[in-house]
Amino acid sequence: MAPDGDVVIVRAVRLRRFAEEALERAGLSRKDAALVADSLVEANLRGVDSHGVGRLFPAYIQKLRSGQVNPRPRLRVLRDRGATALLDGDDGMGQVVAAAAMDLAIRKARRAGIAVVGVRRSSHCGAAAYFAMRALGHGMIGIAMTSGTSNAMAPWGGRTALLSNNPVAVAIPASRRLPVVLDMAMSVVARGKIVLAAKAGRPIPLDWALRANGEPTTNPAEALAGLLRPIGDYKGAGLALVVGVLTAILTGGAFGREILGFYENMREPHNTGHLMLAIRIAHFMPLTAFHRRMDAAVDELKSSKPVRGATAILLPGEPEFLTARRRRREGIPVPAALAAELDALGASLGIPTRLGPRPRTPRPERT
Amino acid sequence: MAPDGDVVIVRAVRLRRFAEEALERAGLSRKDAALVADSLVEANLRGVDSHGVGRLFPAYIQKLRSGQVNPRPRLRVLRDRGATALLDGDDGMGQVVAAAAMDLAIRKARRAGIAVVGVRRSSHCGAAAYFAMRALGHGMIGIAMTSGTSNAMAPWGGRTALLSNNPVAVAIPASRRLPVVLDMAMSVVARGKIVLAAKAGRPIPLDWALRANGEPTTNPAEALAGLLRPIGDYKGAGLALVVGVLTAILTGGAFGREILGFYENMREPHNTGHLMLAIRIAHFMPLTAFHRRMDAAVDELKSSKPVRGATAILLPGEPEFLTARRRRREGIPVPAALAAELDALGASLGIPTRLGPRPRTPRPERT
Repeated sequence: MAPDGDVVIVRAVRLRRFAEEALERAGLSRKDAALVADSLVEANLRGVDSHGVGRLFPAYIQKLRSGQVNPRPRLRVLRDRGATALLDGDDGMGQVVAAAAMDLAIRKARRAGIAVVGVRRSSHCGAAAYFAMRALGHGMIGIAMTSGTSNAMAPWGGRTALLSNNPVAVAIPASRRLPVVLDMAMSVVARGKIVLAAKAGRPIPLDWALRANGEPTTNPAEALAGLLRPIGDYKGAGLALVVGVLTAILTGGAFGREILGFYENMREPHNTGHLMLAIRIAHFMPLTAFHRRMDAAVDELKSSKPVRGATAILLPGEPEFLTARRRRREGIPVPAALAAELDALGASLGIPTRLGPRPRTPRPERT
Repeated sequence: MAPDGDVVIVRAVRLRRFAEEALERAGLSRKDAALVADSLVEANLRGVDSHGVGRLFPAYIQKLRSGQVNPRPRLRVLRDRGATALLDGDDGMGQVVAAAAMDLAIRKARRAGIAVVGVRRSSHCGAAAYFAMRALGHGMIGIAMTSGTSNAMAPWGGRTALLSNNPVAVAIPASRRLPVVLDMAMSVVARGKIVLAAKAGRPIPLDWALRANGEPTTNPAEALAGLLRPIGDYKGAGLALVVGVLTAILTGGAFGREILGFYENMREPHNTGHLMLAIRIAHFMPLTAFHRRMDAAVDELKSSKPVRGATAILLPGEPEFLTARRRRREGIPVPAALAAELDALGASLGIPTRLGPRPRTPRPERT
């Protein structure tokens, strides 16, 4: 969020309670409010603040109020055959729908060894890692994919934003070592980084974005009016397309011009598609053997000689686990402006929990 | 191969016959020789010459002669539970083993809707798209992943080559439109492009490779002694790791230091791992409905305004389909030096088919 400026340090438990109360008052069941709040605060804990409680207001609450998102969805299993299922999310909060889909995939994979659950009529679900990681405790590898809710990329060679920056998350358990959790979208950087550069009046590297005519730019304002640049150019654009097909074309979700824009459209349901996969490790080898193999692989990778300036090799998910460990202990830094906005929201909803103002000098975050 | 220099134009049928004869004389069964030859010539047809008949000699033939690759493998199904299986490739040609694995996944997915088949004790299998595309005719989406046979990348932040440039291929059927076939490894460019730059004495772009100390370089010689740069830096390195886990850790294949090097080691079996997935579309929606949705999505994406210099938007796999269409008609350009090498090999094996020398002026290839 704000890299400089005052922050309020909020304990995770307090932030979670606030989010729960806000979501319940916006119409969610207690259980669903707890799940969405947990996913948001987990994102904050993990340092993925772009998918944390900052989404609550105005976006999520406004979407719930306008009826764009249904606070009390009745999820329906449209198809359930073999190791597959297709879920209708009834325009519910994406977190609720995506978690239900992954949990169903996990149940089905227990017997089949692999299962895939597609989802249509969902909405923005936050950080994809949250769903992939649900598989970890079941001796499974979890793979979570979702369509984005805004288009940010062009098919390669084009300059019309028809592709969402579709993320994929993969969670792989280990034993002595931390799980490997990759959670990535297909752009070189998140749009938020370009917003920060624009605010700071700084130029951006040439490989971050394309101006509206499809050519690279160092001007953040041009970039924001243009396109995100995919990783590996045609490769990242191809990955975004493939994830779009799997999450939206295959499920009946929105694709291409059907994608409305997360902030641009606060009224009509998004019909966001997801795809959740679970792979049961014991179908391939005993879980303990896999754990040993993963621990050894992680040991080996982390023994790589570091490049100059690096002190340790951090594998996918490791920075997030380390940040979460610290933030669980020390609290979550919330920009004071956001805390004030959330408290105003809380007051209007009659929520007793307050986040601020207890501005403190921002502690320098160690990473 | 050689972008300049003489080429011999060889009809696909002739090249396939030559490869079949060579592989049969190297000990493969007629059926397996036909499959491997087909996969190589398909790669040539599709313009993916790095995975074409150029691999035959010396690499594949030498590996078969040394016993590193077993010409008559007895594939064994080690596990077969639910929608999963694990195959032991008995050190056979990777193409034979990977095709068997994908065909098993397709059979299992017919009932389960999704299936995954892991493979251990295989070897280099050529272009991954060949296996993913086997699903297309069955109303399925095919996903083929393989471990590489050489390490070319470091975990992000490191500079020890412990990760292979592991490719993923995804094949998605359409009806009126061409299938979407993404086949990509996780580096910005293939090593072959750096070899060409080194031969030509040209500097390479800064984002292609890292020198041995892990820092970017424009010097192709330094790059060849160093590391390939992953797409999106930590993202591509993370993808290579995840694909490595799925194809090798989960299957019992070689990972990290166990990976021997395709050209560096011509004696010991590679224990290459693969992972093949098939998803049956009819479990989600009628195939005709999916075809309509895909055709419409392709129409829409191809209607994107092109960037300056682009005349058409080509989706993943489309350049390869167009090249294959042309090369089926006009023949495959084989560098004269390679044709001579293959003919010498052929003579030593007593093969009647000859590829050259009938050098012609290279036709300018239209793309």
